[in-house]
Amino acid sequence: MLTHYVYYLSDSTGITVESLGRSVLAQFSGINFLEKTMSFVDSKKRAIAAAEEISASAKAHPERRPIVFYTFADESFASIIEQSGALTMDCLDTFIRPLAKELGREPSHATGTRLDEKRARDYQRRIDALNYTMNHDDGISMHRYAEADIILIGVSRSGKTPTSLYLALHYGVFAANYPLVDEDLTNTRLPEKLTAYSDKLYGLTIAPQRLTQIRGERRPNSRYAELDKCRQEVGTALRLFDENNIRYLDVTRQSVEELASKILYDAKLPRYL
Amino acid sequence: MLTHYVYYLSDSTGITVESLGRSVLAQFSGINFLEKTMSFVDSKKRAIAAAEEISASAKAHPERRPIVFYTFADESFASIIEQSGALTMDCLDTFIRPLAKELGREPSHATGTRLDEKRARDYQRRIDALNYTMNHDDGISMHRYAEADIILIGVSRSGKTPTSLYLALHYGVFAANYPLVDEDLTNTRLPEKLTAYSDKLYGLTIAPQRLTQIRGERRPNSRYAELDKCRQEVGTALRLFDENNIRYLDVTRQSVEELASKILYDAKLPRYL
Repeated sequence: MLTHYVYYLSDSTGITVESLGRSVLAQFSGINFLEKTMSFVDSKKRAIAAAEEISASAKAHPERRPIVFYTFADESFASIIEQSGALTMDCLDTFIRPLAKELGREPSHATGTRLDEKRARDYQRRIDALNYTMNHDDGISMHRYAEADIILIGVSRSGKTPTSLYLALHYGVFAANYPLVDEDLTNTRLPEKLTAYSDKLYGLTIAPQRLTQIRGERRPNSRYAELDKCRQEVGTALRLFDENNIRYLDVTRQSVEELASKILYDAKLPRYL
Repeated sequence: MLTHYVYYLSDSTGITVESLGRSVLAQFSGINFLEKTMSFVDSKKRAIAAAEEISASAKAHPERRPIVFYTFADESFASIIEQSGALTMDCLDTFIRPLAKELGREPSHATGTRLDEKRARDYQRRIDALNYTMNHDDGISMHRYAEADIILIGVSRSGKTPTSLYLALHYGVFAANYPLVDEDLTNTRLPEKLTAYSDKLYGLTIAPQRLTQIRGERRPNSRYAELDKCRQEVGTALRLFDENNIRYLDVTRQSVEELASKILYDAKLPRYL
């Protein structure tokens, strides 16, 4: 398989440029991309060092140029990188230029993404959401369910915790979660303690085949991990969702980001961040 | 202040396009951007509905066009949006075209960002990292510190938990954290139980003024939240970091993403995801 070297460069965290670059690369199959992120390239010295590393890679593999995705607030860094012999893609300036023209304003060329005030507010909201979510993980406490934006329910190991935490961290959502255990699954009635919050419930389901794998890694050779046990639990949970009009998502082939943003969208949750 | 309407459109989560758009907008000060994300615009019907909403906004405010950042794998959705009367920015195709030329390949135009196998592996790593991090939050358990990629230390409310969770969720890092409490701060020696792991320690510090605010919201009028108490704790923790050669970051004016990616970079942690 063809191998291409890919670099993500940023004067900040590199999270945006990585995420954009990966979406672009996902459009090309049959190629092995070897990715490297260089974050906090925020001085001329670091930009030169990055360009030298890329140049060396370009010379070592003259038949296929390295691919560079970058975002710099300072344009002079861009021109250093452009001389590295790679295919370079300026992921920020490409959009800043038309916007500057539209707005009739000059860009500030300042590094960093947000104002301090908004940042402090966002930070506080995130911390509050995280505290809430950690204190209401896995049904350990239900005493502030009235404050929840959403309460995820599902069988053990169906992805409730990571999805709740992503909702809290990325969107500032108060996300509780409650595990449907054996005693909740003797019939398809909603557990008594959840009935007051039925409008906040959102179900997660998972393919029994996948569930048995996940549980098996945690507790090998247990009844808990057996396929027929997983099938029975998932089947009852699904009927419980249906009979109580609880919307649900199948986590089997989705990433945590996808689950969280689908739930945000589907449950019409407010955007806090 | 000028107000501009901004739309983020995606056939998937919208996380990438939002993050890119926000970085672009951050370059323009003195303008109030009213942002709206439309995710999962993955059918012609939804693309038309989105374009109609944007058109209505364009007509209502003819003096300033809406600004649209979008990513679609299917190009026909793009042309629907381009007719909405907004300033549109195609955040994916802009980079796919030159890359297709470079690689001599056609893009797949498939929605979704990753292969299933990699996705399943990433999911598992994330879950493992999250479980590890939640089980080793706030010093509650130290019995698997040997497996930690990093152990964050700092006084109470210095941002250890959100930073650890972000490291786990976003990068798959096993991040433990340990709170420096009064008994750890009677002198500047490293707490006995941490000495075996000194190479994994990373400090967090915070401005006492900010700490007193954060603690005050949690426990108003407590000794714990008083400014001189915060000053004394932070001061001792800083000397402890210095005397034991522990690298540290100041969390005061940084977002959780920035902290996590700086630590990843500074501590040279492996990239798992």
